Amino acid sequence: LRTWVHCILLSPVQVANNMMDMDQDPRKRLCFADGRRKVDYVLVYHYRKRSSVRGSPSQHRLSIISNGSYPLGVEEKDQEGRKDEPAEVVVDVGPPDPADGEKIMIREEFEGNLKDAGLEIEHDKENKAHGHAFIRLHAPWQVLSREAEFLKIKVPTKKSYELREEKGLAATMNEVWRKLNQPFQPKVPHQEQEHSRTKYGAFYKYQPVDLIRKYFGEKIGLYFAWLGVYTQLLIPASVVGIIVFFYGWATVETNIPSQEMCDEDQNFTMCPLCDRACDYWHLSTACGTARASHLFDNPATVFFAIFMSLWAAMFLEHWKRRQISLNYSWDLTGMEEEEEHPRPKYETILLQKRQRKKKNTKNKNEQIKRQLKHIHAYILTLFTLNVFLPSQTGHEKLTWRDRLPGYLINISSILFMFGVTCSAVFSVIIYRITISALMAMSSDPEVKSNVRVTVTATAVIINLVVILILDEIYGMVAAWLTELEIPKTETNFEERLILKAFLLKFMNAYAPIFYVAFFKGRFAGRPGDYVYVFNDYRMEECAPGGCLIELCIQLSIIMLGKQLIQNNVFEIGIPKLKKLCRTLKDKERAPKEIVEQPGRRQQWHLDYDLEPFDGLTPEYMEMIIQFGFVSLFVASFPLAPLFALLNNVIEIRLDAKKFVTELRRPDAIRAKDIGIWYNILSGLGKFSVIINAFVISFTSDFIPRLVYQYMYSETGTMHGFINHTLSYFNVSNFKPGTVPSISSLGKDITFCRYKDYREPPWSTEPYQFSKQYWSVLAARLGFVILFQNLVITMSMLVAWVIPDVPKNISEKLKKEKTLLVDVFLNEEKEKLQLIQSLFSRDLTQEQQEELKVSDQTSLPLQQTQPGQLPPTSSPAPRTRPRAASFSQFTRQMSMSPRSDITQHTAV
Amino acid sequence: LRTWVHCILLSPVQVANNMMDMDQDPRKRLCFADGRRKVDYVLVYHYRKRSSVRGSPSQHRLSIISNGSYPLGVEEKDQEGRKDEPAEVVVDVGPPDPADGEKIMIREEFEGNLKDAGLEIEHDKENKAHGHAFIRLHAPWQVLSREAEFLKIKVPTKKSYELREEKGLAATMNEVWRKLNQPFQPKVPHQEQEHSRTKYGAFYKYQPVDLIRKYFGEKIGLYFAWLGVYTQLLIPASVVGIIVFFYGWATVETNIPSQEMCDEDQNFTMCPLCDRACDYWHLSTACGTARASHLFDNPATVFFAIFMSLWAAMFLEHWKRRQISLNYSWDLTGMEEEEEHPRPKYETILLQKRQRKKKNTKNKNEQIKRQLKHIHAYILTLFTLNVFLPSQTGHEKLTWRDRLPGYLINISSILFMFGVTCSAVFSVIIYRITISALMAMSSDPEVKSNVRVTVTATAVIINLVVILILDEIYGMVAAWLTELEIPKTETNFEERLILKAFLLKFMNAYAPIFYVAFFKGRFAGRPGDYVYVFNDYRMEECAPGGCLIELCIQLSIIMLGKQLIQNNVFEIGIPKLKKLCRTLKDKERAPKEIVEQPGRRQQWHLDYDLEPFDGLTPEYMEMIIQFGFVSLFVASFPLAPLFALLNNVIEIRLDAKKFVTELRRPDAIRAKDIGIWYNILSGLGKFSVIINAFVISFTSDFIPRLVYQYMYSETGTMHGFINHTLSYFNVSNFKPGTVPSISSLGKDITFCRYKDYREPPWSTEPYQFSKQYWSVLAARLGFVILFQNLVITMSMLVAWVIPDVPKNISEKLKKEKTLLVDVFLNEEKEKLQLIQSLFSRDLTQEQQEELKVSDQTSLPLQQTQPGQLPPTSSPAPRTRPRAASFSQFTRQMSMSPRSDITQHTAV
Repeated sequence: LRTWVHCILLSPVQVANNMMDMDQDPRKRLCFADGRRKVDYVLVYHYRKRSSVRGSPSQHRLSIISNGSYPLGVEEKDQEGRKDEPAEVVVDVGPPDPADGEKIMIREEFEGNLKDAGLEIEHDKENKAHGHAFIRLHAPWQVLSREAEFLKIKVPTKKSYELREEKGLAATMNEVWRKLNQPFQPKVPHQEQEHSRTKYGAFYKYQPVDLIRKYFGEKIGLYFAWLGVYTQLLIPASVVGIIVFFYGWATVETNIPSQEMCDEDQNFTMCPLCDRACDYWHLSTACGTARASHLFDNPATVFFAIFMSLWAAMFLEHWKRRQISLNYSWDLTGMEEEEEHPRPKYETILLQKRQRKKKNTKNKNEQIKRQLKHIHAYILTLFTLNVFLPSQTGHEKLTWRDRLPGYLINISSILFMFGVTCSAVFSVIIYRITISALMAMSSDPEVKSNVRVTVTATAVIINLVVILILDEIYGMVAAWLTELEIPKTETNFEERLILKAFLLKFMNAYAPIFYVAFFKGRFAGRPGDYVYVFNDYRMEECAPGGCLIELCIQLSIIMLGKQLIQNNVFEIGIPKLKKLCRTLKDKERAPKEIVEQPGRRQQWHLDYDLEPFDGLTPEYMEMIIQFGFVSLFVASFPLAPLFALLNNVIEIRLDAKKFVTELRRPDAIRAKDIGIWYNILSGLGKFSVIINAFVISFTSDFIPRLVYQYMYSETGTMHGFINHTLSYFNVSNFKPGTVPSISSLGKDITFCRYKDYREPPWSTEPYQFSKQYWSVLAARLGFVILFQNLVITMSMLVAWVIPDVPKNISEKLKKEKTLLVDVFLNEEKEKLQLIQSLFSRDLTQEQQEELKVSDQTSLPLQQTQPGQLPPTSSPAPRTRPRAASFSQFTRQMSMSPRSDITQHTAV
Repeated sequence: LRTWVHCILLSPVQVANNMMDMDQDPRKRLCFADGRRKVDYVLVYHYRKRSSVRGSPSQHRLSIISNGSYPLGVEEKDQEGRKDEPAEVVVDVGPPDPADGEKIMIREEFEGNLKDAGLEIEHDKENKAHGHAFIRLHAPWQVLSREAEFLKIKVPTKKSYELREEKGLAATMNEVWRKLNQPFQPKVPHQEQEHSRTKYGAFYKYQPVDLIRKYFGEKIGLYFAWLGVYTQLLIPASVVGIIVFFYGWATVETNIPSQEMCDEDQNFTMCPLCDRACDYWHLSTACGTARASHLFDNPATVFFAIFMSLWAAMFLEHWKRRQISLNYSWDLTGMEEEEEHPRPKYETILLQKRQRKKKNTKNKNEQIKRQLKHIHAYILTLFTLNVFLPSQTGHEKLTWRDRLPGYLINISSILFMFGVTCSAVFSVIIYRITISALMAMSSDPEVKSNVRVTVTATAVIINLVVILILDEIYGMVAAWLTELEIPKTETNFEERLILKAFLLKFMNAYAPIFYVAFFKGRFAGRPGDYVYVFNDYRMEECAPGGCLIELCIQLSIIMLGKQLIQNNVFEIGIPKLKKLCRTLKDKERAPKEIVEQPGRRQQWHLDYDLEPFDGLTPEYMEMIIQFGFVSLFVASFPLAPLFALLNNVIEIRLDAKKFVTELRRPDAIRAKDIGIWYNILSGLGKFSVIINAFVISFTSDFIPRLVYQYMYSETGTMHGFINHTLSYFNVSNFKPGTVPSISSLGKDITFCRYKDYREPPWSTEPYQFSKQYWSVLAARLGFVILFQNLVITMSMLVAWVIPDVPKNISEKLKKEKTLLVDVFLNEEKEKLQLIQSLFSRDLTQEQQEELKVSDQTSLPLQQTQPGQLPPTSSPAPRTRPRAASFSQFTRQMSMSPRSDITQHTAV
């Protein structure tokens, strides 16, 4: 049913004409054998040799599984709505089994229903032993009209009326009309056209969103439009990100803390990084990381974090506006939510429940006396259900009792998956700890010097691989779990699936990053009181430059790696592989049949070889996870928007190519918005504010620097900051066996330094947190509060200042309304004049009789209908009462005059 | 126009019938002299003796001020829409002046327009020298119908159709029908009915919201419904608040800190509270406030603050649902925003601008050569304006340039008002400081002992009076400022007015409370280094029990005082006073005329004596400010919801009484929601979260207690807490002249204590903030972050879990849709059968001819309209093209079958 929506604007006469004089046209291939009727939909099934059960369709009809409660019309519609699913199921799921007869019966029943609904069917003529049979459907004009009415698709009526009214308007209307009547882009040429657009070279061009919508339907059109808006808005974010990055790069030379760290004269002797095997070391050897840190950890990043939070708010507002514009130009403004048919799975389980209940009731009747009390409670329950669900009178539905096992499995599985993710992260930590400990113990100085680089690099790669694998697994788990919940409708199913998949994949992608940002190095303890894992391995610390540089490395590798690998392997490689497998399988199945001549292969044969369409969820999910990288930790990695931009420019074209050339054409689905994804985006935007606040205040050294400068520095400058952040440790307090075994520096050392705010050994409370620690902590927390509330307020301001409905759209809507009032008043005036002229001349006998008749029919309605005037016309039989027409007319007018009308000059 | 909406459901035939057989009915008084036509609206003006200008209306018509660009219909409507305003303006504003003639012409022009629009007019017959003239209007059925169409008021059409369909449904429909046709409640009996409801005794009953809506219109109906929901939800909040209060009351005996404070053995000698005049004192003397503090400052208040934040979220969600239910039952679901007519003020200024511009252009033409460049720029500007405002083609509008002076005055006035509020608060502080200093210096021990009580009480009362006075002033200032902004429409005006008034009144009501909560005592300095105001007076400190108890006192007095005084004085007293004044004035004016006999005074004379209606803004404002008291500082005053509840129970009935008996019946206005008030409410809800977080963590002692218990207490209990919070001061460090002059304790004292976390005199950094200070600060800030994010997340969860559309409403909407599909498909089937039967028999010559004719007319439309079938009926002249009817029909059906239909069994 869904694909026909496209064709509704194409009048059959025109198609026929096109067909007549274009015999060689490839479009001809898209018609029935008569060359006139267009193929609107193709059903495929796999068959073996026709069994003997075959007969006239009416003979073998199965009884349809029905709720028994749908009015006739709905039932018909229902059959159509589901028609593709069972057919596909028969092909894909069922292996050729001996019970083929039943399948044939189901199919014939099904085809019979299609015919009842008014569709025209064409079968294949060829009769091979087995293979794929294609049933082609044609939806005639009447069916299209009826369904268009159901979908409330608007057409520019009243054209003649406008014409009489004003010329400028009519001209515009004609223009619109011409466009609507333009020959519908046939599939093949359209495909080629798209092709040219999907080549990498076209990356700088606008997307043909309207064409996409026309061909793929609104839902996919909205996806590409959304992707376009997102990518477009990444451009300013990237530019600002680059500027921030270059600011860091330019100021690294003049930055006092990194100068002090690199200054070899300030000879800070640091405590060893591991027990026994590691020696004391000079802070100046970590000069490189300190300078690198400054690239990402400078005051500009604070500005950038604020900027990006506002950017996220702006993006959401901008998308809202774009969506409303698209809704308007795609005629979706008046679209109402359709009541969906329940999913077959739901129906099946409901049927099972009903049967079980019937059986139970029977049993109970037999034991009625013994269980009277019980039954009474049962009936009471039913009664209560009816009271609370008034619309379900006579229906039953699945209650939470039926779903309870599903929910329980859900919760436990999700908790389990969380556990899996966490243990994956923890395993990598263990890997890092052990490998670095082992490498540090190695005698090879080459190995020793590369410890950090090697360990970090391998660990991040392991992380990446784990993430990619778990990502695929979680996708499948989420689908399985959602099935267990037995959602009622497809929309419901999709929403639940998305939420679950998002939760799992988000956890999976961000768990290692969260660890580095907020936990790494915070549980390492202090010299003389380190925290040990497995009694042997010291908990890992951050690099001397701070955790921010590690966070940055982690973030960039995971983001880039995920995008590159998912784009290349999962989106290009695996589908190709799958296709290859299927082709091989098909060839195996029919090895002895004559290979069909390529000339005889129709378009539908070619299309059938393509991959089926899986829905937009994976596409959106990828982008949302990317949006997380761009917004959540942007304070630590200002280049994230740039990488996202580069990825998306490729992604758009890659997606387009995939949709056009590698997937079967998806059913077009009408949609007003991007649904739950918007909520997820807005949630991410809000979450990013608090995360960035914490990254700036806890992961970066921004706050300690500020506190030092304004509270402790004697000169008011940053000089002495490094010394201030390093606490003293008396080496005599080392636990036995942890002192460096071989030390080039250790002989004359009494104090080593470590990065923390703790009391010195000579204080009254040695190694306790110092006053500085608490003041810095207070400043950090204060900054979080300030940042969060400031940014949230600013975001709300941005959202409030940008109106949801673009000005030109609201102006257009207003103009349509003015037009309506105008038309309506003129109408009324004409009517009045007509009545007057009618009443002024003498009525003939015949007319009087007619009036009597019609008076009788319309009088009872007259009271109910303020707009009713004395009937003046039509003694002919009425197919519908005219009572409602007056107000209908206005309502119609308020909805139909589409304002591609841009010029409306006053009379 | 607005009041007629009520009458639409009343068919004129019925009114007439009622009138005929009820001659003695008071309703008769509401009719024209013929006793048949109902008075729908009354215009009043003050006149002197008829001047000689009077003639036939057509003679003296003034040229109407018009934009010259509205299509005919709109202009007519416009005239009607504004009709009451000018009439009222003529009465109220203009004092009797010699230019009466012009006024008469305006009035006649106006009346002529009313007649053109189809209204019927009745003048007074009496001809006094001067007095009030009443013009009564009657809106005939046609006018009502037309306007009903514009407003898209739905009526249950298709009744006959449903009848044929199913019996159960039809019965329900009939029921609905019967109700709708019930004789419309006439004004007087209705009023009496309301009366009985507005007596204080009826406070426990539900409000008759539907009746209110019927009589006052949707906007006022929504106000009362909102007030009802708010009051209802205050009940659980009050209950929990009382429980929390009693929890504090019950635990006060076992509370260790207050025990320690009252313990006279723990002899804490406190530093004096003022310089020289005050003595050292023992902490145990402040035992009373410590115990009182505990009532409001205990762990239960933290729970209560969280509870109230969730309560606010719940309230907003609940109201959303109620609003949607009301929208549904009041038929507002499909209501669209009307394009409003600009305010007269706006039009006037626009006209002035246009005239000025014309003059300018003329001048320029004269100096064309010299100013060519300038004009070019001018035209370019105009062009640009047209491009950016495509809908305003040919229109001009006021740009920001025209409004700039207004905006500037606005901003500066608002800043000035802020200054006024702040200085009011500051004056009261100065009052408190000076008075307490003076009283402390008094020699009378009686005076000395009552310092705090006297000062606090008087200061709060001064605060309250200032608030009440400024409240009235700010209301007027806001209205004046909004006029200066020249908003285009009435809605626009109202929104801006509300925002400004809210801002000013909110500041006004809360500034003193904010001061006590967050600033009082924080700038007082420390012993030996006090902060002085005017070089002489020490900045005030909080009471020894903490600032929370003072906050609580301040809050309760302002809240209660404001409510009591506003309810009694402003809402009852002042209107009565005003009425009295007016009556006296009127009597003065016409002292020599014969007093009219009471029997001859018509209803409209009585009604004219009532106060005019000022809009709902003051009512809402009062409630919103109250909502602020309930939500913002609820952590410090758990009884606020209870006081609010008590106030509201009275307020509802008081408002109802006022609306029914003391105000002229307001114009009914359709409204879907409570507008900007919802946004203000939701903003207050969000703001309250952060305010409560700060109150708990900074104003109360909750966090210091926690920190002491878990970080510093050696026993893990609260013992020693008081000692921990008091710092030491060496009395030898007092500045000269600040030592207590006469001291009973001072002889053997070396250290006095004060409440702060500072290093003791013997530390290396005496009197600096101690480590405890910073750790407590960090804990406080951490708590704010935790509380804010936790509560916001929970509120979002609450909002997400509660669906916006109540289940029964969405079920009903779905059912209506099912009905539509059903009806539509049957319709189509019948039509098909009809066509078949028509085509199967031979057509007569005449019919064939008819078909040809109608084919010609409908063919071009047929292509545009998918649902069109060959015309089968009506050769009679068509007043409107039938092309759109098919889809209109469905659209109509989707909107009209109102589902007071609750039973729809399947066929």
